[in-house]
Parts: sequence; structure tokens; C-alpha cells
Amino acid sequence: MALPSFHLWLALLLLATVCASAVHPRKLSRLGGLKRFPTREPSIDLAPEYEIHYYTQTLDHFNYKPGSYATFQQRYILNYKYWGGANTSSPIIVYTGEEDDVTYDVDGFILELAACFKALLLYIEHRYYGESMPFGSENQAFQNANTFGYLSSEQALADYAQVITNVKKNLSAESCPAIAVGGSYGGMLASWFRLKYPHIAIGALASSSPILYFDDITPQNGYHVIVTKDFRDTSESCYNTIKQSWSEIDRIAAEPNGLMTLSNKFNVCSPLNTSQELKDYLGLVYVVAAQYDNPPYYPLENMCRGIDGAPEGTDILDRIIAGLKSRYPGRVSCHEISPYELSNKSAWDWQTCTQLVLPIGYGNETMFEPPEPFDIKSYIKDCLDVFGIVPRPHWMTTEFGGHDVKTVLGNFASNIIFANGLRDPYSIGGVLEDISDSVVAVHTEHGAHCLDLYSPTPDDPDWLVAQRDKEIKIISAWIAEYYAKLSTK
Amino acid sequence: MALPSFHLWLALLLLATVCASAVHPRKLSRLGGLKRFPTREPSIDLAPEYEIHYYTQTLDHFNYKPGSYATFQQRYILNYKYWGGANTSSPIIVYTGEEDDVTYDVDGFILELAACFKALLLYIEHRYYGESMPFGSENQAFQNANTFGYLSSEQALADYAQVITNVKKNLSAESCPAIAVGGSYGGMLASWFRLKYPHIAIGALASSSPILYFDDITPQNGYHVIVTKDFRDTSESCYNTIKQSWSEIDRIAAEPNGLMTLSNKFNVCSPLNTSQELKDYLGLVYVVAAQYDNPPYYPLENMCRGIDGAPEGTDILDRIIAGLKSRYPGRVSCHEISPYELSNKSAWDWQTCTQLVLPIGYGNETMFEPPEPFDIKSYIKDCLDVFGIVPRPHWMTTEFGGHDVKTVLGNFASNIIFANGLRDPYSIGGVLEDISDSVVAVHTEHGAHCLDLYSPTPDDPDWLVAQRDKEIKIISAWIAEYYAKLSTK
Repeated sequence: MALPSFHLWLALLLLATVCASAVHPRKLSRLGGLKRFPTREPSIDLAPEYEIHYYTQTLDHFNYKPGSYATFQQRYILNYKYWGGANTSSPIIVYTGEEDDVTYDVDGFILELAACFKALLLYIEHRYYGESMPFGSENQAFQNANTFGYLSSEQALADYAQVITNVKKNLSAESCPAIAVGGSYGGMLASWFRLKYPHIAIGALASSSPILYFDDITPQNGYHVIVTKDFRDTSESCYNTIKQSWSEIDRIAAEPNGLMTLSNKFNVCSPLNTSQELKDYLGLVYVVAAQYDNPPYYPLENMCRGIDGAPEGTDILDRIIAGLKSRYPGRVSCHEISPYELSNKSAWDWQTCTQLVLPIGYGNETMFEPPEPFDIKSYIKDCLDVFGIVPRPHWMTTEFGGHDVKTVLGNFASNIIFANGLRDPYSIGGVLEDISDSVVAVHTEHGAHCLDLYSPTPDDPDWLVAQRDKEIKIISAWIAEYYAKLSTK
Repeated sequence: MALPSFHLWLALLLLATVCASAVHPRKLSRLGGLKRFPTREPSIDLAPEYEIHYYTQTLDHFNYKPGSYATFQQRYILNYKYWGGANTSSPIIVYTGEEDDVTYDVDGFILELAACFKALLLYIEHRYYGESMPFGSENQAFQNANTFGYLSSEQALADYAQVITNVKKNLSAESCPAIAVGGSYGGMLASWFRLKYPHIAIGALASSSPILYFDDITPQNGYHVIVTKDFRDTSESCYNTIKQSWSEIDRIAAEPNGLMTLSNKFNVCSPLNTSQELKDYLGLVYVVAAQYDNPPYYPLENMCRGIDGAPEGTDILDRIIAGLKSRYPGRVSCHEISPYELSNKSAWDWQTCTQLVLPIGYGNETMFEPPEPFDIKSYIKDCLDVFGIVPRPHWMTTEFGGHDVKTVLGNFASNIIFANGLRDPYSIGGVLEDISDSVVAVHTEHGAHCLDLYSPTPDDPDWLVAQRDKEIKIISAWIAEYYAKLSTK
């Protein structure tokens, strides 16, 4: 799967920088986060209604060794603006922070939810991200496997349980129903939180959370099959051009000074060492375009418009270049092609090297070339090299389930919305079918990654408005049911 | 709560030894296990149909520090005698081992269940008990907080998840429904396992599991209030005699040579140092009699028969002594009165000093004197003294819930039987009311601790037969529902 680092997303999507790093496809599956996009411009100060707090959090919830008792300062944010108060048992919307600084994600649809339900907003930062650093600082926390070792999804969920319980207690808000909301990895956490801590959250909205992309549940090539479908559905000729481009790149690379020709043609910042570097980079551009092919910009359509719209007679690679230009109009001075490596200073890389092993790869059935099947051996070797740690690729399904999800949760659990946009390649690992009356799938054909969680705008297409309305209606029913029970006590 | 050590239970109940240790009431709440009684005579070899296996278990499921990757050999037992096989998707009955050598508990009602459902029997030993010792041996595992530190209920549940998944895989039995069964602390684990790992167990039978005796959910004096009620319901005069005996003990103790008089009168093995020692010992005898006041021996009724049946004119303390004689007829050469202390070599004491903090105490409202309110400060101090560790008394309700259980689980979870006997003082912390159609309470008025889990006998009273029949009927429905879903796949 294409999981570039956060700053890479920014580069590729916001075009806030002039260059973008390249990604080696063999590493696609453990690069960067699942990530949804920031809902606000991170560089701007938070509005004053966002109160920043810190909770003295237990380092290790599940063991009782002397080191387990260490604590760290976990950041959380409260926004009372919409809250009806504890007296009226008004709800608490809990944002289950993902692999990011939590202040980046305070805006968006979540404000709409708060306004709609007169809810308190509680955003909790995930341990080892933003300011929520065990051992006092990123420098200390990211030292080695001993200090990184407390970074796991189970610990994060237990953190959320503690923070919510504490906030409720401080506000005498024990009777206020909490609803977990998150996107991407944060959406996984929201749904797992409802499953594991139903006594703390009465429901969860999990947007674009591929909880089934673990172990052998989802076909490994699913992610790239969807990317391919997205391109093909958008434009058969665009898809064909891309499909033909790989051998064309190789053909030119094999010519005398071929790599220099390609370097110049594609305006890369440093000369290419291999044609594979270029192919990796393009591959990443395509998957990112697909993953975020959301209104109003529709990056994938935009790119295909460039590819297809080049004057008749334009050759294949010039069409690709026209696609890049259309995608990044006037903002990319040169393309930064540098092989991505796992970093022993990346919390997300650590998570993918321990439990978040999404086995993403592909053979000959996609528009990408050459085949890059998921290779657990090299995956493990890289993790060993960088962190000295061996992933546990089967643990997530043991801990959180996923196999046979309809049978398992059909008569268990309640109040979870799995929201997806089917253009999001991760949607293939999402829950796309209603599991029961109250564990439901709400998806759109045209949306991509986490679209529902962005701030509504007057230009939103009807199908997106309908998706959000449906989510509000469902959550409304959870809250009504909760109040009905509360009133009979 | 009266939780004497395992061997003390044996001493007090099976009368297999001639003496019994005494318990200081202030420590009642963290002594020994919740314990159900062994279903078989532990000294006799296991029958050959019980196959002993070992699973290479992960030491720490929730962290990824280098030490977390250590493994240990976890013992589990398979019994294929009743199994219909993987081809027919026949069930697996999983015994979620409690604070004991798992071989002690292979018999009992669980065999009936296996026979009834053509089930494979899988008994899993709890880490740090029996042979399932991290670090290779009890000596190594019980060294200090660093080695003890991996002993927690969450780790034990994750162990069970791993073992079940592995056994299913080895037997190609992935489609076989697993049902968790346990009693007392093992019953808590069974119910928590269903709640946290619904993808691995389709249901749970939790016998006499006081999952609500944490934090502030259940009144602290509940345990001793039930003991008192048990005595009073059995015989008002027996209750009165006991109630009057405490001041009578003090009165005699205050006489010249009073302690010697009491020592001789009560036939204690070593002379009493204080009258409190005797009161502690008697208190323990009473709570144990109540907790296990089960057919066919009915120890409480037996003791009251002795107390009430003494010739008219017998004084109070001689009546108490007559009660002891009736309770332990001809087998106790002398009563061993020694103050119980937390042991830094006890896995159960470790568990009560970390997360299993059951706040049990009482004031003036019970038949016990003097009042012994639960004192968290001295509880913590003792744990610090012995293990150098501070308990987390509020963690269990954060991790597993318990507050407002009917609201929380009313539309969440399914397929759990909470079985209780209302004479069991722990039943006060059990689930005694149906939570939903399939999370149900099955209790008897006359049974005590874990009675349903013992082997059925022809002399069982009708109400006990009815309780077990009901449990079978409910589990039957779970399995039928599972098969119905399986057949539509």
C-alpha cells in the first residue's frame, strides 16, 4: 500500500513544497501513515475555543513491571463551544487521534457533529505523536526498541479509555454518552475502541478504516487493483497510457544516455540512478492521486485530463509529463526522486514494523509494472535492519478479529458506522456491507479517503451531503436510544 | 473477601490435613484466589485421554520491547474423547484456566458439556500457575516485580486467544465454534474473553464470577453481608451464637490466663498471642463454610447443626467448638492459628496487589466483629512492602467495564451465561439479572460457589439439575445459531 510519510503527503497533495520524495515500491506497504489529510492548515494557531490539556498517562497499561508505572504527558484538546453541558447529559464526541499531531485535525465534519448534537469535543493525541511523547521528548522516545516498545494500538486504546474516563469525572459528565470518531488509522482505532471499550463509547464513526487489510483477509493486490480501476473508470485511454509507459521508460533508459534523457524529460531534481527510481516515483503519484481523488480537486481526474488532453500525436512519456503538469500546475520546480527508506526515527515506521503489517503487493493484474508481490521476508529483514525488531504479522487478527466479520459481529457489537469512499484504494480492506442493524456500512461510489470527515462546503456533491446526513441520522438514533435507557433508570 | 490460599482451602474444606492456617481479617481481601474447588483429586494421575501440550507463548502481547519477545512454554490439555471432529465443525469447549494448576480442574460438568455437544476439550493453564512459568521456572518467574510484571489478566486473555487460534489451525478446525467456560476468577476470564475476543469464542459460561466486585460498583460489605444472611437464613440461633461469641472471646481473654484458657478450649496447635488471632481464624472458617455451602456436604448447615445441637445449657464458646467439631468431624487434631501474610512468592497475591483489587470490608452490620472496613491505604502499603508495587484499584472497570452493565451491554455483546448460587458471598458481585436475550443470568437460590461446574451426581437436587439443563439449553442455541450461519456461507 502506498503510505508515504506525512510530509510526503503534504508535498504530493497540498503542493506546499516544490519537490516530492519518491518511494520504492517494495516499501510501499510500510511507508508513512494511512493518513487522512489535515482538516486545517497546521501552521495557523488553533482558535481560542480549543483548550489544550495534558493527562498524566500510564506508560504500560497491561504489565506491572517497575517501568510500566512510568507516566508521560498526553495531550488532549477540549472544545466546549457546542456543548449542552453535563446537566443535560449532552454527548462527547471523541476524536481518536491517529499517527499525527492532533492539532492538525480539529476541524472538519466533527464540528458539524458537535453542533448537531450539542456535544463536547474531545480530541486525544495518539502516544508517540505530536507532543504526546513518553520519556519526555521525541529524542528520548525514539531512541531504540526499548523506548519505542510501548507504542502499540492496544496501549493507545487504553490511553483513550483513561483520558475519556478522567475527563468525564472532572466534568461530572459520567452520564454523557461518548462517541468515538476517527479516520484512516484513527478510524480503525475508533471502531476497535467501540469493540473493546463499549462501556466507554456508545458508538463509533470509523471513516476509511481498512480493518480487514490484515493477515489474509483481503487480497494483497486489492489496493492496487482499486487504483487501477479508478484510473480505468476515469479514462480507459489514460489507463492505457500509464500501462504502456513502464516499458517505454525502460526502452529509453536502455538507450545511450537514456537515464539522462529521462532525467531531463521528467525534470527530476537529481539525475536518476535507475529507471526504477522514476517508476517508483510515478507509481506513488498515481496511488496518491487515487487515494485522495476527492472533490473539489479530483487529483486523479485532473491528471488523466492532462494525459488525455495532450495534443494528438504526443508520445506516451510526454503524455505522462502532461499529466504531472496538470496534477501539479506550475508549482513543482523539479521532482525530487529519492528512494524512501524506513526511518528509525519514525513512529509510524515502528508501528508498521511491529503490528500494523498490511500485506499490500501486486502481480501482473494491475496497471503497475513490474510486479511487486508482498514479500514478508524482505519486510521483516528491513524492520530488523532498522529497528532490530520482528513484526508480528498475524497478531492484529488475533487481537481485533477481521476474519468472517459478518458472522462474528452479526450478533455481537452495535453502533459502529464504517464509512468509505469506493475510489479509496483502502476501501477494499474496509467493511462495505452492513453487518447488522446497527453495525453498518455507509459508502459512496465517488468518494475517496476520509472524504466525509472534511468540512462540509456549499459545493459538496449531493452524494456526499447524503452520506454525512445518513451518518448524523444513525448517530442520532444511538443517542436517542441511550437517553431512552437513561430516563428509565 | 475471604480468599485464603489454595492449600488453606484444601485444609478447610477437604479436611485433608489436620491443621489450618488462620487469616488476619485486614488481609482477607487479598488472600488466596477466588478459587473454585478442584474437580478431581489432584494427586491422582490424569487419565490417558488428557493429552498434555505446550505452546510457545509470547511473554508480552501488547508491547514490542526486546524483552516482550521472550516466550515461555504454556501448558494446555486436549481431550478428544467426545469430539465429533473438524469435518463436522464440532465445537471446542475451552476451559479458561484460573489461578491454579490446570490439571486440577479437568473434570466436572465440563465433561458433560463436551459429551452433549461432541466437543473437543481444551484446557488452558493461566500464565504463572502450574507449569506455565515464564522465565523457565517458578523460582525465576517469582523473583521480583520485573519478572512478575507480565502477570495480568489482559496478558492471560491474549494467551488464550493465541492458544485457541493455534490449536484450531493445527487441527484444521477453524470452523469449529469455541465456547469459553470458567469458574470464579476463571469465570471472569471466560466472560471477559467473550467480550474482548468475540471472534475467537462464540460464547461463554462464567460461573460464580464477581466481575462487578471492583471499584465502587458493589457495596464493600456485600461479601460479609451475604455470609451473615447465609447463617441467619440457616439458623437464627446459630447466627446469634456466633454474633455473641466475639465479646465472649474477649471477656475470657481478659481473665487471668485467659489466652491459655482459650488456647486449650479451642485446641489450637500453638498458644494464642492475642484473642484477635482466634477471631480471625473463626471468621475465616465461617466465610469458607458459606462460600462453599454446597451439596452434598453443606458445610455451613453442618456447622450450625453442631452449634444449635449442643445440649441445652452449653455456653456460647462451647457451642462454637461443637460447631467446629461438627464441621470437621474427628479429623482436626489441632487448629493451626498463624497470621496470614502476603507472600512475595505467590502469583495470586501479586495479582491482588496489581489489578485484582476487590474492595471487601465490613462495618457493624454483619455477624463479624470487630468492623474491618476496606482500607485502601493499608492495602497499598502491604503491597508496597511485599512486592514494591502499587495496585491500580480503578483499572479493571476502565479496562473491562462493570458500571451500569445493563445499559452498556444491553445492546452490545451476546452469548454469555453468568451462573451463580446466591449462597455464595461472591454472588453479590456477580451479574444476577438478564442483560439481554443472550447475555443472561442463571442462578440458584440454594447453591454456592461454582456448584454448577462440579460433576453431576445422581443425588443432585432438582434445582441444580435444572440449572445445568438450562445452561446446556442456552449453549445449544448458540451453537445452533452458529451452524445456521455457517450453512448459509
